[in-house]
Amino acid sequence: MTRLPEAVILLTGSELLDGRVRDRNGYFLSASLAEHGFRVATEIFAGDDERLIAAGLKQLLDLHPAVLVVCGGLGTTHDDLTTAVVAVVLGRRLWQDPDALRMVEERTRAVCERRGVDPETVMTQTHQQALLPAGSRVVPPAGLAPGYILSERETTVVVLPGVPTELEAMWPDVIAELAASGVAPKTQRRVVRIYGVGEMQVVPALEGVAHERVEIGVTAQLGEIAVSMTYVDEPEALGEADAIVAKLAADLPVFSTDGRSVDEIVAETLRSRAQTVSAAESCTGGLLAARFTDRPGSSDYFVGAVVTYANEAKLRLLGVPAQTLREHGAVSAETATAMAERARQATGATFGLATTGIAGPSGGSADKPVGLVFVSCAGPEGTTVRRTILPGNREAVRAATVTAALHLLRESLAP
Amino acid sequence: MTRLPEAVILLTGSELLDGRVRDRNGYFLSASLAEHGFRVATEIFAGDDERLIAAGLKQLLDLHPAVLVVCGGLGTTHDDLTTAVVAVVLGRRLWQDPDALRMVEERTRAVCERRGVDPETVMTQTHQQALLPAGSRVVPPAGLAPGYILSERETTVVVLPGVPTELEAMWPDVIAELAASGVAPKTQRRVVRIYGVGEMQVVPALEGVAHERVEIGVTAQLGEIAVSMTYVDEPEALGEADAIVAKLAADLPVFSTDGRSVDEIVAETLRSRAQTVSAAESCTGGLLAARFTDRPGSSDYFVGAVVTYANEAKLRLLGVPAQTLREHGAVSAETATAMAERARQATGATFGLATTGIAGPSGGSADKPVGLVFVSCAGPEGTTVRRTILPGNREAVRAATVTAALHLLRESLAP
Repeated sequence: MTRLPEAVILLTGSELLDGRVRDRNGYFLSASLAEHGFRVATEIFAGDDERLIAAGLKQLLDLHPAVLVVCGGLGTTHDDLTTAVVAVVLGRRLWQDPDALRMVEERTRAVCERRGVDPETVMTQTHQQALLPAGSRVVPPAGLAPGYILSERETTVVVLPGVPTELEAMWPDVIAELAASGVAPKTQRRVVRIYGVGEMQVVPALEGVAHERVEIGVTAQLGEIAVSMTYVDEPEALGEADAIVAKLAADLPVFSTDGRSVDEIVAETLRSRAQTVSAAESCTGGLLAARFTDRPGSSDYFVGAVVTYANEAKLRLLGVPAQTLREHGAVSAETATAMAERARQATGATFGLATTGIAGPSGGSADKPVGLVFVSCAGPEGTTVRRTILPGNREAVRAATVTAALHLLRESLAP
Repeated sequence: MTRLPEAVILLTGSELLDGRVRDRNGYFLSASLAEHGFRVATEIFAGDDERLIAAGLKQLLDLHPAVLVVCGGLGTTHDDLTTAVVAVVLGRRLWQDPDALRMVEERTRAVCERRGVDPETVMTQTHQQALLPAGSRVVPPAGLAPGYILSERETTVVVLPGVPTELEAMWPDVIAELAASGVAPKTQRRVVRIYGVGEMQVVPALEGVAHERVEIGVTAQLGEIAVSMTYVDEPEALGEADAIVAKLAADLPVFSTDGRSVDEIVAETLRSRAQTVSAAESCTGGLLAARFTDRPGSSDYFVGAVVTYANEAKLRLLGVPAQTLREHGAVSAETATAMAERARQATGATFGLATTGIAGPSGGSADKPVGLVFVSCAGPEGTTVRRTILPGNREAVRAATVTAALHLLRESLAP
């Protein structure tokens, strides 16, 4: 395909490198840049140290990217070194940008008023955030620190604060400027989702179809496969993408050709039909309910759940017959069925969805190994139960069971 | 303090740079290296491209670190380039290591047997994974690909596969070798945990006490503060660390001086007393149950939960009196109390733990703003309820509510 322009990212902050804080900005920025048609080539995390930040910056500039995003270290404490290093590496003097100064003063007054502090006591300190390398265009701040954009030969350098909520609030302005100045390519992105096959089975389906103008990414996660297509907005590329989607849908169990997740499909279907669902969870222990309730407004269609982790709870909270548990065990098609049906009856929901399985690490046997899972869906037209053996550790088995339950519900909802 | 040796990390894989996969290895490796006494200076993510991997590798070697960990790109497909690039950059020839070859063959046979595939059809391809740069010590594989360790001037270079479960299974061998060869410093690490104050209140407590020999890290997460201390194993540093712990415990609501999390404290206390807990969740929607059941063996003390997300479920599943809901609303001390007490009665558990609140983004009012949360704990000695207003978005409010509920249970369990 038309080669995508390259983007690179430099993230500063020692807290990202000692296990204290898990990165969020790098993931956000790289995903957004990819979505807007850039190929993210390299991402560097540098500790708060001039030498490390300068080394990272120089290496990234040496790759001659179209865009270099630098984030973090724009505050007012001794370890906020980013702007000074940028100025030195790019050979630009620092000057007090009047636009930036006005914004910093406004924001400082607003924050001080909210906290009941006299702004004059902190103004000298916050003024430092208006010292920018010469030639910068200011990105208005979401917190106290403005960001800035400057052109350095073929590279557009974007510098932003590292507080994730601030960075995410300021980012749309940056994307708009990259689009307006023609740095960001005009691309389309499409995602096809597949459930029930492995990555190995996707590759052959892609082999028989042209994709010279479409950049394809295949990701496997918890039994689902996502095939993403990025392409320049032109008829030939669009035609190729359409052919790829059609080929995948013909060969494989594709459940989404418009990027919608199984969560979205289930939520929209239930809401449009004014139907509801409740859950009975054993091995997933609350994760299925948590995934439903992760969506704002989910109380429209999600009634509630019973987490019957101990066998006693299956009897007392859910009323699973003692005989079923005794004869078939907690991890069985019969118990899963009873759980789904009891959840439906107890809550009056349209559908009851149940999980039971052996998440490990212990509790497995030759007969019922770790990873053995039953999911069941009870609805107006009867009850379906599905047996599967899931790979991976406790966390992976639990997460994949939640996904399996959602897909069983999606299939039960299919017209 | 004695300056800690530096470590750096190179992670390869285009899927980490386009939003497909969120990094896990970098976070795992940096946290573990920090815990073992290294200062992690820089982490680079490079796309699957010789030019990018070589540039990252060279920049990291130029920092002259004690340890360089490279991960990803050891498989057998066309984008697995790591070993070839390492060999070129370090100027070493590739040779078929007999130990590695034996391990690869053994693992290939085992995997093929499980999948019912003839091993000879894939053996030539997998043999490639035994081609190592001259002078490597093999790290036995957890999947198919072995890792390797080699010495390059002052730097120990460690190369590992990028599949997180494989990397994490192989890592203890690497740490053991770094310790045995004297590359890893002999350090101690201690973590003090505090609940109920902000990071701003921790800094003054640290100011009055010497910490020349102790490296301190302060992390705030969901209302908890963790103060980590890393120091070389010697009496003076140990004395300083003891003094810091004593000062923090005197000034602040410290709940753990031995690194144990609130989850561990609650689990161990319940198990040692043969007591149990059940939950009734509204705004946390299953996350509290999921956090309990995240621990293997939690069925010893966690009976189950009722997720009453819709009001109807509070009535039907839990039997909260309609009058309580009508008069006080779902988000009230009265409803929280009734939920905790009903959860306890319905399950026969020693304790009933309940959450109700407004996680947002909508649903708030002047009277009951987004972030208003009630947690309640019912036990043999009565019921406690706590009101709090939590900051942040939906995800943050839900997660912090789970933590608040666990701390209320911990306090109810305190001797």
